[in-house]
Amino acid sequence: MIKKPTLVIDEDKARKNLAFMAEKIKRQNVNFRPHFKTHQSDEIGEMFREYQINTITVSSVDMAVYFAAHGWEDIFIAFPVNILQIEEILELSNRVKLSLLFEEPESVVFIDRHLSSPVSGWIKIDSGAHRAGLMVNQLEEIYRLAKQINESRWIKFIGIATHAGHSYAAVDENGISAVYRQSLADLQMIKKFLLSNGLENCLISVGDTPSARLVDDFGEVDELRPGNFLFYDVQQYKAGVCEVGEIAVALACPIVAVHRDRKEAVLHAGAVHLSKDTHKWETPSGYAYGLVCLNNKSSIGWDDSKIVGFIRSLSQEHGIAVFPEGITEDVKTGEIIYVLPAHSCLTVQAMRQYTNMDGEIIKTMLD
Amino acid sequence: MIKKPTLVIDEDKARKNLAFMAEKIKRQNVNFRPHFKTHQSDEIGEMFREYQINTITVSSVDMAVYFAAHGWEDIFIAFPVNILQIEEILELSNRVKLSLLFEEPESVVFIDRHLSSPVSGWIKIDSGAHRAGLMVNQLEEIYRLAKQINESRWIKFIGIATHAGHSYAAVDENGISAVYRQSLADLQMIKKFLLSNGLENCLISVGDTPSARLVDDFGEVDELRPGNFLFYDVQQYKAGVCEVGEIAVALACPIVAVHRDRKEAVLHAGAVHLSKDTHKWETPSGYAYGLVCLNNKSSIGWDDSKIVGFIRSLSQEHGIAVFPEGITEDVKTGEIIYVLPAHSCLTVQAMRQYTNMDGEIIKTMLD
Repeated sequence: MIKKPTLVIDEDKARKNLAFMAEKIKRQNVNFRPHFKTHQSDEIGEMFREYQINTITVSSVDMAVYFAAHGWEDIFIAFPVNILQIEEILELSNRVKLSLLFEEPESVVFIDRHLSSPVSGWIKIDSGAHRAGLMVNQLEEIYRLAKQINESRWIKFIGIATHAGHSYAAVDENGISAVYRQSLADLQMIKKFLLSNGLENCLISVGDTPSARLVDDFGEVDELRPGNFLFYDVQQYKAGVCEVGEIAVALACPIVAVHRDRKEAVLHAGAVHLSKDTHKWETPSGYAYGLVCLNNKSSIGWDDSKIVGFIRSLSQEHGIAVFPEGITEDVKTGEIIYVLPAHSCLTVQAMRQYTNMDGEIIKTMLD
Repeated sequence: MIKKPTLVIDEDKARKNLAFMAEKIKRQNVNFRPHFKTHQSDEIGEMFREYQINTITVSSVDMAVYFAAHGWEDIFIAFPVNILQIEEILELSNRVKLSLLFEEPESVVFIDRHLSSPVSGWIKIDSGAHRAGLMVNQLEEIYRLAKQINESRWIKFIGIATHAGHSYAAVDENGISAVYRQSLADLQMIKKFLLSNGLENCLISVGDTPSARLVDDFGEVDELRPGNFLFYDVQQYKAGVCEVGEIAVALACPIVAVHRDRKEAVLHAGAVHLSKDTHKWETPSGYAYGLVCLNNKSSIGWDDSKIVGFIRSLSQEHGIAVFPEGITEDVKTGEIIYVLPAHSCLTVQAMRQYTNMDGEIIKTMLD
């Protein structure tokens, strides 16, 4: 029985989400390298083996160490390499097929000097998100870096990678597809430039859930690295990427007070459980912190056939749920209600473990 | 040596912040019941004993269980009581002087029926934050609830409590003082009403860091429950509550890429480290995710004599720092830079442990 804020996973939904994505990517002969930062769990990672997935993406050296310890042998740390963690990187490179992400010559020199096993080197391209990477138009710099990588002792240049994070700002399927096509065209232009200048090969790796879900034809791309698709969340739903019924994790929250006069309830569901990420919603602020479903009245689990409210504010431990007319009459203090998270990756990070529909605990690397 | 995102605590600053607050509150003969949700650490809690502080506030039953296990014997769970955790509440009530917060008659009935030791009952008053509690003008409801509490077997009505969280929205010292005075006047009016209707006594407990720091004369109040004052943060700095030099925690972050052309650096410092809370800042969005200081060039620690930048965006693991002219020329990949957090409580929650200036780890209940 749930007594305090608990992250519940509907494993059937997650499996369906995974099956859809794995099959779609396989059909197009593209390598699937799912991002494991979304679930951060060895046990959930096992689901992926059922689809013969052996290549994974992580977002930190520590996450690579965790999954390497759990038998994953082909790991891409898709984050600009942190040279301060050279010891861990060295150890990983001796154990698994390790891919690192570069955008600066100094990091290439430093890493190469310390290695004793080969690693794969990818160059990070900024295809418009303006977060990290070399800009698409920095062709000379990209070429020099690729050449430097190939001339190093231990690092082999493999290709160029991007995360078109700005697809999250696109408002619909057409917008998301347009971002994908532009991003891919840019990467192909870079690849062509590199090959015409004597580089032997250059793979293209891209990775975001909106494109992976909505784009029909992935085109000339070698690898996809989406992560969030496993669980989805309200941000994805509001971007038209998934249905509410596909969201595979929800926070079970005790109701601790009901304010019927203002059609609100106080939930034990704060920033420490949901994270403070938001999604678009028709509120005065333009956003909310999650959508509310009733429990399924039987055991563990939520009824997503109807969204009954949204979270208008979050503090450290409190969440304030707002309902339309007629809902607060039916809920009361001491009951459990579910919040579909704005951003499932951050909610998983905050909660550090899952409970499945049978009440069993599933651990993460954080637990 | 710091190699990955690390929450560094300057214990001297925290001690000074504590000394100031403890002495100020003591001078006015008010009970100090600091909120331990800010630090969540047994070891840091020990600092408070040096000031003869024996009464503490927490925000969850689990936090009460943790601090009770570490020798704290007078604990106020300042969160609407979660009746689902009755087992833990029962156990706590047998062990420590426990204070619970009520706003609904049903919770009083339920809790009373299950207890076997006396507890203190406080009524939560909403003095304007509109988060939880009975409204100031619901005098009859407040009176009936107080009477019901007193007529219960195990719960004794102690007083009324509020958290004037809307003081955080006040823009300056005058605004914060005005919120405090209004809130206290409301509570005194409620107290007067209760006493004139036959209640024997009614303590007044209030708790927010802006008021505790800035209000000169606390007036006729019995107890103060600030928490954040121990560390402060950029939200408090921007509200005029503290100086930058008083902020006692900062996130040490590896620089993983420098973009000199746009005067930015990519830090390993994401939402999973800083939380996604924001503070006001002069950016197009009107906010930022933390302020950047250089390291102190010796060992562990930051130089807060100059703010050299701010965090303009955060994703799961990346933070993008923006600098004025002339800074990116002096920083490079592989160096450590410090981020003063927007909201220290949530950064502590995300990081789950501290490193002090001597490089020693300080654990929290989350670790």
